[in-house]
Amino acid sequence: MEYLEKLGQRAVAAKYELQRLSTEDKNRVLRTAAAALTTATDRILMANDKDYEIAAAGGMTAGLLDRLKLTPERIKSMAEGLLQIAELTDPVGTIMESFDRPNGLHIDKVRVPMGVIGIIYEARPNVTADAFGLCFKTGNAVILKGGKDAAYSNVAITEVIREALVAEAVTADAVQLIEDNDRAVTTAFMKLKQYVDVLIPRGGAGLIRAVVENSTIPVIETGTGNCHIYVDEDADLTQAVSIIINAKTQRIGVCNACESLLIHEKIADKLLPVLGCALRDKQVEMRGDENVRALIPDAVAVTEEDYGREYLDYIISMKTVSSVEEAIAHINRYNTKHSDAILTGNREHAEKFLREVDSACVYVNASTRFTDGFEFGFGAEIGISTQKLHARGPMGLKELTTYKYLIRGDGQIRS
Amino acid sequence: MEYLEKLGQRAVAAKYELQRLSTEDKNRVLRTAAAALTTATDRILMANDKDYEIAAAGGMTAGLLDRLKLTPERIKSMAEGLLQIAELTDPVGTIMESFDRPNGLHIDKVRVPMGVIGIIYEARPNVTADAFGLCFKTGNAVILKGGKDAAYSNVAITEVIREALVAEAVTADAVQLIEDNDRAVTTAFMKLKQYVDVLIPRGGAGLIRAVVENSTIPVIETGTGNCHIYVDEDADLTQAVSIIINAKTQRIGVCNACESLLIHEKIADKLLPVLGCALRDKQVEMRGDENVRALIPDAVAVTEEDYGREYLDYIISMKTVSSVEEAIAHINRYNTKHSDAILTGNREHAEKFLREVDSACVYVNASTRFTDGFEFGFGAEIGISTQKLHARGPMGLKELTTYKYLIRGDGQIRS
Repeated sequence: MEYLEKLGQRAVAAKYELQRLSTEDKNRVLRTAAAALTTATDRILMANDKDYEIAAAGGMTAGLLDRLKLTPERIKSMAEGLLQIAELTDPVGTIMESFDRPNGLHIDKVRVPMGVIGIIYEARPNVTADAFGLCFKTGNAVILKGGKDAAYSNVAITEVIREALVAEAVTADAVQLIEDNDRAVTTAFMKLKQYVDVLIPRGGAGLIRAVVENSTIPVIETGTGNCHIYVDEDADLTQAVSIIINAKTQRIGVCNACESLLIHEKIADKLLPVLGCALRDKQVEMRGDENVRALIPDAVAVTEEDYGREYLDYIISMKTVSSVEEAIAHINRYNTKHSDAILTGNREHAEKFLREVDSACVYVNASTRFTDGFEFGFGAEIGISTQKLHARGPMGLKELTTYKYLIRGDGQIRS
Repeated sequence: MEYLEKLGQRAVAAKYELQRLSTEDKNRVLRTAAAALTTATDRILMANDKDYEIAAAGGMTAGLLDRLKLTPERIKSMAEGLLQIAELTDPVGTIMESFDRPNGLHIDKVRVPMGVIGIIYEARPNVTADAFGLCFKTGNAVILKGGKDAAYSNVAITEVIREALVAEAVTADAVQLIEDNDRAVTTAFMKLKQYVDVLIPRGGAGLIRAVVENSTIPVIETGTGNCHIYVDEDADLTQAVSIIINAKTQRIGVCNACESLLIHEKIADKLLPVLGCALRDKQVEMRGDENVRALIPDAVAVTEEDYGREYLDYIISMKTVSSVEEAIAHINRYNTKHSDAILTGNREHAEKFLREVDSACVYVNASTRFTDGFEFGFGAEIGISTQKLHARGPMGLKELTTYKYLIRGDGQIRS
């Protein structure tokens, strides 16, 4: 734990230094780090090879191995990510509000860095550079805890970035990596409240639950998405099929993919045979209620448990409902407050759905797949928040900042 | 725990109903509840008498007994608090940002209620009405857990408000009180994540620590204040004495009172004899370093531990420093990120202090006592946040809301 204490102390020392950097300074460092990553391609690939061999020998699945694997192109795209962050507007220092009080006090509400951000993530080495870039641009020191299967890759990437920082005469402790992969260290990290201002877990539901249950540091929950699409009786059915196929199958392993479908019973007989065909073509397993199975014979019986599941797979749950109210109640019961959509030509139903569905992003006539910092035009994304405190939905640079009040007086005392 | 489950389920049902209420409806209910509290004065006082007798017999201190005690005037002022909340602008429904994407999606970022708010507080029955008013105005259902010493009072106040809600045809479950005062129930409440969106502890450092350590619900920490005043070498010393006396002694038991003083060594010999006299007049115990004690002979020796303490008493710690940098470093080490002030005529030092001190509220030439929702002009206050996530400093109505993204399309899919 002494190890973590020292890491925390160094991060706090770094945060004060970073808060003094100008936007130009920060952008220059980001460009230097980007160039350094490209230059160090071979060194990073060698480290990544070690991780990959160990993981492959240990029986890691193909999907996870793919996320772990780096290539010259992937390293180039990590570097390009840093260059893109350098181009974004720096939110730090913005005066959000200004007001004068009758007693003459002048109050400015100013956007400032959080301070020290902790990020816990899985074996995806690209997150290492990405998280550094976003935190650094917003003037935050970051402590990273990556998945142990990417340990060599993360050390290499972090070292390259730290060397770039030093070359630019900025503290290397702007980014620190927890290299001890003992689970007890990770749990202790979640309680490093004295030094860390916010903790962001990036990964699957298990990781996020562990952080929420153990952390004493304020947490931003990200990424679990049981996203619904409700097809209303007035929906354009051709459009509906196109949106559902997109939301379910364009990329199955992402949090904004559609996992559950609600269909108004009045249009079930028109929609379901066509939709069933389209989903079948994409090898999607359909799990439906009785009405659904009457129209799609190869659909299997849906269970209560299905409604609550984030499959991240070629599986979809399907249920017929008799009204928009029933659809909204079902969604508010089973969703993860991420993204849900209504497909309808009825304006009143659309507005009711927008108002009453309790999610970060509520859609009318569009795919849930748009819940994404880049698609929203933020130019970056640290994750999708599914909680209500602080940030909701896609989080960009602004969401990595807080504010403080600066109050200027000339001797005011309270009476 | 079944008891808490039911409470949670009722709160969730209530939140959907509250989200549909118009501002006018909410204001009418607040006025009805205010009138009901005044009408029920005798009933509330009878309940409060029971609490008071038990607490007094149990040896509660005079200060705490005073906070517990209700009088007709105090009940009137609870009612007036609700009337004031009815007058405030409703933040719910405000469009915070609107943007159109190149693919034709129109995105609105809209302010919405949190949903269900949990509030845990000490034996201060006035908080019961106050917390209800603020949560209700912002469309939130609230679950209250008050200190057990105010149990009878809280039940009476909650019942009166619930009757007023029913009289206005609004769900009584807009406010629910946890009547089981077993500590295990309170701890279980902190884990009611499935139903409660945010948990706000209001009270002393011990209560807040218990919530932070046990809660799985996102928490807003409030209220611990180890506030500093730094007197720079260019300060107006007459003004300095007036500000320090105000910040230390105008009300000692509050979180924005000054607990620690830093004095530039160059003006110590001019300031300290006068200041010592003024603090002595107010019966403030002074704890100083060697330089301080050389100039104020009755000051006792300050310890390292003193620097970190929130006395909430007629005690102040005092230390001389040789520069604004030393003052900032000391403050950032020992403060609670609440409120800190510099007194100076030097603009450069003032700006440096404002930029580098890591607190919710940073003052130049004014008393720290102004950190308060009413003094800031918010018209209300649920607490002072000392964390960086979500809200910082005084929290008014806006800070009891979150936002969601409403996305309107015409068939967009992601490519």
